[in-house]
Amino acid sequence: MQQPITIVILGAGNIATHLLEAFAKTSLVEVLQVYNHHQDKLESFNLPTTTSLHELVTADVYLLAVKDDAVATLSSKLPTNVLVVHTSGSKAMTELKNVGRKGVFYPLQSFTKGISVNFKEIPICLEAEIKEDYNTLQIVAEAISDHVRPINSQQREVLHLSAVFVNNFSNYLYTVAEDLCKLNKVSFDVLHPLIIETARKATVNSPRNNQTGPAVRKDSMTLQKHIGQLENSSYKHIYQSLTKAIQDYHLDNL
Amino acid sequence: MQQPITIVILGAGNIATHLLEAFAKTSLVEVLQVYNHHQDKLESFNLPTTTSLHELVTADVYLLAVKDDAVATLSSKLPTNVLVVHTSGSKAMTELKNVGRKGVFYPLQSFTKGISVNFKEIPICLEAEIKEDYNTLQIVAEAISDHVRPINSQQREVLHLSAVFVNNFSNYLYTVAEDLCKLNKVSFDVLHPLIIETARKATVNSPRNNQTGPAVRKDSMTLQKHIGQLENSSYKHIYQSLTKAIQDYHLDNL
Repeated sequence: MQQPITIVILGAGNIATHLLEAFAKTSLVEVLQVYNHHQDKLESFNLPTTTSLHELVTADVYLLAVKDDAVATLSSKLPTNVLVVHTSGSKAMTELKNVGRKGVFYPLQSFTKGISVNFKEIPICLEAEIKEDYNTLQIVAEAISDHVRPINSQQREVLHLSAVFVNNFSNYLYTVAEDLCKLNKVSFDVLHPLIIETARKATVNSPRNNQTGPAVRKDSMTLQKHIGQLENSSYKHIYQSLTKAIQDYHLDNL
Repeated sequence: MQQPITIVILGAGNIATHLLEAFAKTSLVEVLQVYNHHQDKLESFNLPTTTSLHELVTADVYLLAVKDDAVATLSSKLPTNVLVVHTSGSKAMTELKNVGRKGVFYPLQSFTKGISVNFKEIPICLEAEIKEDYNTLQIVAEAISDHVRPINSQQREVLHLSAVFVNNFSNYLYTVAEDLCKLNKVSFDVLHPLIIETARKATVNSPRNNQTGPAVRKDSMTLQKHIGQLENSSYKHIYQSLTKAIQDYHLDNL
């Protein structure tokens, strides 16, 4: 039987917790230790932990699951001649400052504390300087996900930026809708099926071909009516900006 | 056994087609006839059709599945003393100009030609002037959907406006992401799980509690980087507007 690939996880936040949960289900990967600067966050982990970088054990992969800003500093303090990878969408591989091999292990999902995820469905974007390290990361990633891809730093930046549009910005639009419903005593639940179906359609058809509504139809009567309905100036501004953007896009791309 | 409720459908577009498909599966509703101004659109229907309003047969419900702008004119030409309902999200019940009973039968979903939908999951918003007519519409709606609700004209206006945010505007954000991926030779598929999960989460938790990302974190380094990455001025403007809106919202609602 193949020896498991051994990992030390550095960080104890959302990504670390979700990865630990996923690695616990596979015999191909063994997490040896979790490091965190503060002890309190380590209390809940059911495996060896440390708050001292001097106590790190030897492992095949040192996986940084820390805030973007901590990647450079923390990696610079790690042992030399080991494989260090970060999990950040927005940082290039070269932001790792360890003396030795580098890579990236980026699970493209928005993790929420307390909501468990099906890792099998989560794309994991991999990058490494040398083929041997890529192969190691591939074994680790494929042990938990069915969607593993080589993605270089530049492509990952684009994905991270795109994720802001489809996740952060879409979620804000849902927030606006929920707020409008609440103000008018309509249950936001009524919109749930539309939210789900809109997302599903974007994964079946190209979203540019799914565009409907008063903006793309140039239905100026409905547009005026909607703008009149919006009392919140911020919502009004967003409505007008997105309407104009939709019209410009579909004019340019006829 | 209960007599089916009989319907004449006026219109032959997307909504008419999808409703016909749904009604075909229930014995509680019988569509007697489809009317359309033009003959060509009627060719594909497998039941009696007419292009003349003088040939309309007697039915319990005359259901208008036409463009918003046609509701007033077409309803004004219908027989007196019958129940006429429209299927529009944005038109008040009083926009019906028939002499007689009025109601609304609004399925809250975005219908795409050729993509069949599971009507059981689609909320149907009902309104009627009198209780007896509401009961009739309720039997019809519950025969095809598990989510039937009384929604008055003012609430329906709010839902229609909210639907623009969660459907039209979200879809545009998906379009931007697809475009950014295409320009940088990354497969848009990588973002599919994030799109689906973001939508799903909004139906489980209040979306305001799901907000993540550089805007709400006030991570100005990432925000600056993203804005620099966006070459398209329209995308840049949307990024800045939505970032500001998210920050204003979460400042006001702390």
